[in-house]
Amino acid sequence: MLECGRKLEEVTIAYETYGELNRERTNAVLIVHALSGDANAAGFHRGARKPGWWDSMIGPGKGFDTDKYFVICSNVLGGCKGTTGPSSIDPDTGKPYGLRFPLISIHDMVNCQKLLVDHLGIERLLSVSGGSMGGMQVLSWLTRYPDRVRSIIPISTAIQHSPQQIAFDEVGRQAIMADIHWKSGNYYGGPLPNRGLSVARMVGHITYMSDASMHEKFGRQRKDSIDAFKFDPDFEVEGYLHYHGENFVKRFDANSYLYITKAMDNFDAAEGGSLHELLRGTDAKVLVIAFKSDWLYPAYQTKEIVRACKLAGLEASYCEVDSTYGHDAFLLEIEEETHLVTHFLKKVYNGYEVMSEHAV
Amino acid sequence: MLECGRKLEEVTIAYETYGELNRERTNAVLIVHALSGDANAAGFHRGARKPGWWDSMIGPGKGFDTDKYFVICSNVLGGCKGTTGPSSIDPDTGKPYGLRFPLISIHDMVNCQKLLVDHLGIERLLSVSGGSMGGMQVLSWLTRYPDRVRSIIPISTAIQHSPQQIAFDEVGRQAIMADIHWKSGNYYGGPLPNRGLSVARMVGHITYMSDASMHEKFGRQRKDSIDAFKFDPDFEVEGYLHYHGENFVKRFDANSYLYITKAMDNFDAAEGGSLHELLRGTDAKVLVIAFKSDWLYPAYQTKEIVRACKLAGLEASYCEVDSTYGHDAFLLEIEEETHLVTHFLKKVYNGYEVMSEHAV
Repeated sequence: MLECGRKLEEVTIAYETYGELNRERTNAVLIVHALSGDANAAGFHRGARKPGWWDSMIGPGKGFDTDKYFVICSNVLGGCKGTTGPSSIDPDTGKPYGLRFPLISIHDMVNCQKLLVDHLGIERLLSVSGGSMGGMQVLSWLTRYPDRVRSIIPISTAIQHSPQQIAFDEVGRQAIMADIHWKSGNYYGGPLPNRGLSVARMVGHITYMSDASMHEKFGRQRKDSIDAFKFDPDFEVEGYLHYHGENFVKRFDANSYLYITKAMDNFDAAEGGSLHELLRGTDAKVLVIAFKSDWLYPAYQTKEIVRACKLAGLEASYCEVDSTYGHDAFLLEIEEETHLVTHFLKKVYNGYEVMSEHAV
Repeated sequence: MLECGRKLEEVTIAYETYGELNRERTNAVLIVHALSGDANAAGFHRGARKPGWWDSMIGPGKGFDTDKYFVICSNVLGGCKGTTGPSSIDPDTGKPYGLRFPLISIHDMVNCQKLLVDHLGIERLLSVSGGSMGGMQVLSWLTRYPDRVRSIIPISTAIQHSPQQIAFDEVGRQAIMADIHWKSGNYYGGPLPNRGLSVARMVGHITYMSDASMHEKFGRQRKDSIDAFKFDPDFEVEGYLHYHGENFVKRFDANSYLYITKAMDNFDAAEGGSLHELLRGTDAKVLVIAFKSDWLYPAYQTKEIVRACKLAGLEASYCEVDSTYGHDAFLLEIEEETHLVTHFLKKVYNGYEVMSEHAV
């Protein structure tokens, strides 16, 4: 049963795991992905030129150390990388859902993850971690299933979207829906709304970087071969956006973009009240990470999470990392992030072991 | 002759004036508009429900006091409100130019304004003022025609666009060019690329506001009648963007949007060198105004202008106004702006009169 009141009869969940689950099943860490992520958080798929989206953080000796922890990552509900979403076949019609797919929420995504965690026989996750929309799922885990998480690590995220964040998402959706090939979502099998999706992704990329990182990366450098007096992209920053826009459409479904961004905009970890009231009585350990130049999810939003946790009596640490990378920093500032995550998880895990011994 | 090397045989310039030119022709102030502005800076056109775009600053007793000064405002070259632009008839073909219109620059716009000022018999302008792209034209006046301006008031502007500013412009252009009705600019007489232009304007509006002003104005308020689980705009901020996007297409030409944003991106007041070298030997008085929450044209860019002026030995004042309105502040923070402009102009004008007397 979904939050919107509708039901999905069948749901497929694509997931990957790294490392080994220990005998006591106490070392499982769930990684949750952002808007355009997927289940392939680490390692190379056969023939792939790039590793998973958080490969630098997940593996032997890395922040989420697979020599110690059992790491799980699944594609979100509504996605297009293996888990059921608007591009999946609707069993009722034998055709892709398109806009017949029900509107989904961040909590619905988390409910699916909980089914997966149940399926894997894990009673309590050692930790749930993710950045951006991943951080929202982390908060949903904490409020909806507080007894199933020992700790959480939300990164560069918010209790709820600000109007500016909603506005950027809406521009992306409008760009997609303005594409003549979108056809109210019924484009499967025909030409895809690639121009619209590409524009949406370009807007996104601007918000993922910072003014400073764009200065460092591109300046006002022009592409060599191009006449400055054309409407072709002549500045390097334009070429970068085009490249990423055009690549994105090869790997992402436009309808998934609509459903997932809407889920983010509708999300409210506080569920209309105050987060600290919701958290009262829970006991997860909390590590919140933010990055100074992130203007899409500014530090003031992340601090609100820490504040709510502290007011609810939770043990919460906050670290604001100095970085010029903007929102992308959570994927790039690996050294700092590794350090923070390693120590936090170690502490939580050791505390767990001690407690388990006591219990014995 | 345009900067791109091409020529426009005929150019029409739409302009308005307010107040009276004095006998000595020493009280003329040129107002230059931003991306979407026009010659109607003040007063109501017949039947109009809204006054000109800077009406609160121009009129009897206002910042640009028409009891004292003769105020001129013209539509920029490349525009669509009376001055020759891509939607004008190409005399060679008898049809609208479309993309046959030559690429224009900020300096080209200023060259047209200079023809107008010549035509009005004004030897030296008391001041040139404008915000955003207007500020770029102000800087162009200073570097290209230093002996024709007694003072300048650039507001919320930059010596050159940062990669982030270029990136936002490029997303707007891509949204327009992705519209099936754009047809490489040959849409006149047929359906217009309104969806694309509307998306471009929506992106623009986000950058004109601030995170704080959006919080104040909209919060996460939802529109009453709408079901949250649809792709219709349900947050008020979305409705606001839609309203402004849809209204914009009624009054603006998509090709003008392409040409004018490209002129802004290509602009470099320093002309590849350093602005202070260019300004050496000039003597205009300078008042630079910026607004704290403006993240599209951040204060650091405006400060670079002041720095260059001071290095060149010009008398330059800088004022950073506290405001939450973001880039829009230059159109909204009227009280502060009136105060600053009134005193600055008075000082320049009185200095002028004294000098004129000496000359006599």
